[in-house]
Amino acid sequence: MRLSKYFIPTIKENPSEAQIVSHRLMLRAGMIRQSSAGIYIWLPMGLLVLNKIAQIVREEQNRAGAIEVLMPTIQPAELWQQSGRYDAYGKEMLRITDRHDREMLYGPTNEEMITDLFKNAVKSYKDLPLSLYHIQWKFRDEVRPRFGIMRGREFLMKDNYSFDLNFESAKASYNVMYVAYLRTFARLGLVAIPVRADAGAIGGDLSHEFQILADTGESTLYYDKAIESFDLSSLIGDIDEQTLAKLQSFYAMEEEKHDADNCPVAPADLKTAKGIEVGHIFYFGTKYSEAMGAKVTGPDGKEVFVEMGSYGIGVSRLVGALIEANHDENGIIWPEAVAPYKVGLINLRFKDESCTAACDDLYQEMQKLNIDVLYDDRDAGAGSKFADMDLIGLPWQVVVGPKGLEKGVYELKNRRSGERVELSRAELLDKLG
Amino acid sequence: MRLSKYFIPTIKENPSEAQIVSHRLMLRAGMIRQSSAGIYIWLPMGLLVLNKIAQIVREEQNRAGAIEVLMPTIQPAELWQQSGRYDAYGKEMLRITDRHDREMLYGPTNEEMITDLFKNAVKSYKDLPLSLYHIQWKFRDEVRPRFGIMRGREFLMKDNYSFDLNFESAKASYNVMYVAYLRTFARLGLVAIPVRADAGAIGGDLSHEFQILADTGESTLYYDKAIESFDLSSLIGDIDEQTLAKLQSFYAMEEEKHDADNCPVAPADLKTAKGIEVGHIFYFGTKYSEAMGAKVTGPDGKEVFVEMGSYGIGVSRLVGALIEANHDENGIIWPEAVAPYKVGLINLRFKDESCTAACDDLYQEMQKLNIDVLYDDRDAGAGSKFADMDLIGLPWQVVVGPKGLEKGVYELKNRRSGERVELSRAELLDKLG
Repeated sequence: MRLSKYFIPTIKENPSEAQIVSHRLMLRAGMIRQSSAGIYIWLPMGLLVLNKIAQIVREEQNRAGAIEVLMPTIQPAELWQQSGRYDAYGKEMLRITDRHDREMLYGPTNEEMITDLFKNAVKSYKDLPLSLYHIQWKFRDEVRPRFGIMRGREFLMKDNYSFDLNFESAKASYNVMYVAYLRTFARLGLVAIPVRADAGAIGGDLSHEFQILADTGESTLYYDKAIESFDLSSLIGDIDEQTLAKLQSFYAMEEEKHDADNCPVAPADLKTAKGIEVGHIFYFGTKYSEAMGAKVTGPDGKEVFVEMGSYGIGVSRLVGALIEANHDENGIIWPEAVAPYKVGLINLRFKDESCTAACDDLYQEMQKLNIDVLYDDRDAGAGSKFADMDLIGLPWQVVVGPKGLEKGVYELKNRRSGERVELSRAELLDKLG
Repeated sequence: MRLSKYFIPTIKENPSEAQIVSHRLMLRAGMIRQSSAGIYIWLPMGLLVLNKIAQIVREEQNRAGAIEVLMPTIQPAELWQQSGRYDAYGKEMLRITDRHDREMLYGPTNEEMITDLFKNAVKSYKDLPLSLYHIQWKFRDEVRPRFGIMRGREFLMKDNYSFDLNFESAKASYNVMYVAYLRTFARLGLVAIPVRADAGAIGGDLSHEFQILADTGESTLYYDKAIESFDLSSLIGDIDEQTLAKLQSFYAMEEEKHDADNCPVAPADLKTAKGIEVGHIFYFGTKYSEAMGAKVTGPDGKEVFVEMGSYGIGVSRLVGALIEANHDENGIIWPEAVAPYKVGLINLRFKDESCTAACDDLYQEMQKLNIDVLYDDRDAGAGSKFADMDLIGLPWQVVVGPKGLEKGVYELKNRRSGERVELSRAELLDKLG
């Protein structure tokens, strides 16, 4: 993509309304613009990252055997009256009345709707286990939306619902998602700590929040430092029961639940850090299936209420969380898996014909080789081009100027390490291809 | 995908609430389920088609130089008060009040929001022409939602907005979209008739509706039959001014505007047919830029209001329109470009070990060759498998049974023509690969 034909409205000054770094950088890098409180427009660079994250989430859901559907954003109040949550949900639910005075709402989550769908479509244990997910915009009418898309009102979430015949099978479904989540976050280049969450009396220990570490996190975590050194790359392959059990045995708690006197981890092995919640999984048994009458016929011919679990990932929140975990004083540093483009090509001397010709040639060659490149071909100064490229944070920068061209070399800069090397055209294409 | 692990809740009986064939078939083929009036859940097979259509629309928008963004579904009332449409829009607008008593709405379209975005981000003619689009859910609170997703309340639309310095440039932008639309519909396997629409005094003839032909269409068209024989494949490549001029000179009018006595087409060359509107493009000049103060500095240093056009495609509506145009008495007949899977593999004798082994082997081989296959591995009778496969309408069916296996052949059926051939394993894979 040529920057001169693109739409990245970067901002030089720090926006006064942004309190945290991801919000500041997303505004400055032209990724988002606020439309109203807690509601954002995703500009091209923001949307590319959002879509890449969603695609990784999708691939790991599919790999785990979950099936993608798409539920609507607007739900009928009746469903929530059946579950008893219509009154209980409070002011965070955006309530709507349509032209026929029917009560509707903008879905903050989908347990009711999916249970209703299941009830009408599935009748037999033979169709279980079943796991359905969707990636859809949700709305929570936060009283004080803040931190940009990290705590917005309209947000993109992957939510998944499992249906099983009995507890044993539901627990297996839970564990499949537990592993899928660790895989997902590992592919995003994040260290996600699975923190025991309270599932109430029903689920016992079958509830985890996944928190990524960042100084601006809202919760304080205490965890066994062995979690960090656990080989995440092993999760990308298949996982065995033993590894799973080991993973789930690691201690990790939020401050409120951490009891220093009775902690099973020795003080020397205990770490504390701030965390941002990016996912939550929990088993809730027959809570919704009983309330809404979702039954299946078991092998013995008798009807039983289906066992359920639900599993969420904050897809739009992850964009901010990734920036909180990957930035420096000059801007964003994208992990390659979610970078909007892999390479930024900087033409230092727009008005120098041979420099522009060399850039154009390199740009075309990169496109031929499917190297995902953003070409800064604008009529602008070198300083502003460097600053913008650091700000938007592509993993690699290729700098083309008259001096290098005289020597027949191009400068390649690694955005994360800052390391710069001079390479010939062939070496450069080989390195990036 | 194995059908035994999938979620396609087909229905044998015709649903009584469905008045038109696409609605009936989408419900019966397990593509959608109604959640409330005019609001649908997209089940896996429906979502696959919806996404394939959206992707073709996206590719043609990108090819035409449009840039993808994503605007939120919920908009502040203030924007619509600025344009004067907040009161004018009437009851089709879903109006919402948030917890702080702020007036909001679920966007039925995005002229106001995009003009506001443009106004705050673009200041100079140097950044023009600019064309921004998004593919997002919209809501129109129809008084009588009907025809399934064809006239639903929550629907997916691609809408695009062009910004130009002057009329000449705006007209060029309009024509780029005109061609992009014909390309898009051609890739979807549809004949779309561009019908002159009324753009009011501003745009002159710069407004077209794109209508596809189907007996269940809501409008009646009169058009020069030469349109149908126009070589659509030529649109897939580049288009020259002359071809464009020829295309736009073809006569096509809705019944209300057609004047038989003054029609430029000879009666023998005039055809009439029912049409379904799937797209609409129009130039509207400075209507919104003046109302909302969107100006750019021109080459002479003077500020001018930006010239705009808008361009919509009904993405979810196209799913229904495609079925209206592609079905028979047994079910849907998907064009290959949007089919949820290319091939349906039918195991006739689930309980016959060698038959199941042959199917499993073929399924694995097809996956290796990236042949997009849905494998009916269910424990069900041949009759119901044939009926379901015809109903869901994949372009190719591979039938594997003991008799064929004895002869070493597989039956390949073309869903559209009904033609059946017996092929060896190698011939089959070669044909489908």
